[in-house]
Amino acid sequence: MNALILLAHGSRRAASNEEVQAMAAQIARRLPGLRVSAAFLELAEPEIGTAIDRQVAAGARQVLLLPYFLAAGRHVVEDIPAIVEARRARHAEVDIRLLPYLGEAPGMADFLAALVRG
Amino acid sequence: MNALILLAHGSRRAASNEEVQAMAAQIARRLPGLRVSAAFLELAEPEIGTAIDRQVAAGARQVLLLPYFLAAGRHVVEDIPAIVEARRARHAEVDIRLLPYLGEAPGMADFLAALVRG
Repeated sequence: MNALILLAHGSRRAASNEEVQAMAAQIARRLPGLRVSAAFLELAEPEIGTAIDRQVAAGARQVLLLPYFLAAGRHVVEDIPAIVEARRARHAEVDIRLLPYLGEAPGMADFLAALVRG
Repeated sequence: MNALILLAHGSRRAASNEEVQAMAAQIARRLPGLRVSAAFLELAEPEIGTAIDRQVAAGARQVLLLPYFLAAGRHVVEDIPAIVEARRARHAEVDIRLLPYLGEAPGMADFLAALVRG
């Protein structure tokens, strides 16, 4: 079984974190072959490392990580890769794969242009 | 002539603001009928109100505003609408239209699912 974790920053506003959880649920409905969850860098639970551990404990052999961030700030460039590296060392038998963050995803400009066209 | 402004939070990191400007340029190439610019709520220039004024001064009769935000925090719910209301009062002859913020854009979950499928 494979897994996907949507990685968000986390907010003091519960509603923002619930938006991320709801987006993960929407993605799950579109990818029935994956066990989908959400995780947060700070200010909300579960933490990213904990979420990876849970997916591995549930039997995932591959864990895809999608950073739900628009810009390559320190969180995207340093903090998330450091967490991922530590988890790769802990779970050497699992393929833990960090996808491009949303802001540099292929097709992002096409998607935004389509939104404007309506 | 119509205009589009990509609205971002703004960052202390110049590279993050440049990413937003680059995304606006990519959108512009896809929407040749629009005059596209970027603007920032804080920490970077131009401010949103200034960017609207510039588009109007350049002749825009409709200004579309696309909030490049993933969650409906205070900035999306309060700050940006307040700026837009003030500019509508100043430019009553111009159709200033606030689009949904990116996180609630139609098709967002489909777009994310497609990214994961690769």
